[in-house]
Amino acid sequence: MFNEDIQTLAESLLEAARQRGLTITAAESCTGGLVMGALTAIAGSSDVVDRGFVTYTNEAKQQMLGVNIENLERFGAVSNAVAKEMAYGALANSMADIAVSITGIAGPGGGSDEKPVGTVWFAIAQLGEAPHAEERHFNDLDRDGVRNEAVKVALSLLLEAIAS
Amino acid sequence: MFNEDIQTLAESLLEAARQRGLTITAAESCTGGLVMGALTAIAGSSDVVDRGFVTYTNEAKQQMLGVNIENLERFGAVSNAVAKEMAYGALANSMADIAVSITGIAGPGGGSDEKPVGTVWFAIAQLGEAPHAEERHFNDLDRDGVRNEAVKVALSLLLEAIAS
Repeated sequence: MFNEDIQTLAESLLEAARQRGLTITAAESCTGGLVMGALTAIAGSSDVVDRGFVTYTNEAKQQMLGVNIENLERFGAVSNAVAKEMAYGALANSMADIAVSITGIAGPGGGSDEKPVGTVWFAIAQLGEAPHAEERHFNDLDRDGVRNEAVKVALSLLLEAIAS
Repeated sequence: MFNEDIQTLAESLLEAARQRGLTITAAESCTGGLVMGALTAIAGSSDVVDRGFVTYTNEAKQQMLGVNIENLERFGAVSNAVAKEMAYGALANSMADIAVSITGIAGPGGGSDEKPVGTVWFAIAQLGEAPHAEERHFNDLDRDGVRNEAVKVALSLLLEAIAS
């Protein structure tokens, strides 16, 4: 179901987390569960995967992750501030050691001049560290393409954070 | 990413829910986010998809969905009772009108004589109705195959419940 890049990344991430005894969670908006879907595609993932939050609506982001409504209104759901709050909220509302968040515009609708289709914010939160966020632009891709690339980046950011 | 059967089912389900003004949530264990992933693969799904719970661990089932630890211990996570509690918990902890749950053994490990690999329980919960659960056996399929079939059944059960 997932392409080879994603499978390889998921396997490397699970192995790195397992070696360090770390468990993982994700708060997903535009990827809609695919980051967790890719990790759980690998047999034996249950010792590393804690749980996942698919927070598609703003209400879900607030209620499941504690994202501040003022940040949603001021910066929008696809923003540095909300990505950080989502990752922090996933960590705080789970038993995992590390969390990734993904919030973006997969298209084809929903884009603007400021935030075109393909704009995705990611954040990583770890116990004892301030969350950090990164923005990526996946241009000229369709909805599936944006979501696939976003899954890859999310897994890569987790792997970097764990391996560093 | 998802095969044509799943895409067609997801589109039909979104259309049926949209016509009736209903929103959807899912509590996923063995499918690990793929039901939500399949629904959100369709552009415009955001008016129907509320949120998703990827409850891979027993702790996640208890903490996110309120599944009773006694049922987990007595019947196991892959059971009629836990499937019903997961669907009910997803409904109660979301703003959705209808919930599906999926809990099964995707393999290759984790099977037993009583519950072989490919055993999956599903439940549907709707406001004002008692949850109902169904068991399916997907024999002779690998992990990907079991998960794919489970996604299809979950979408079909939602569609049946909404269309009836």
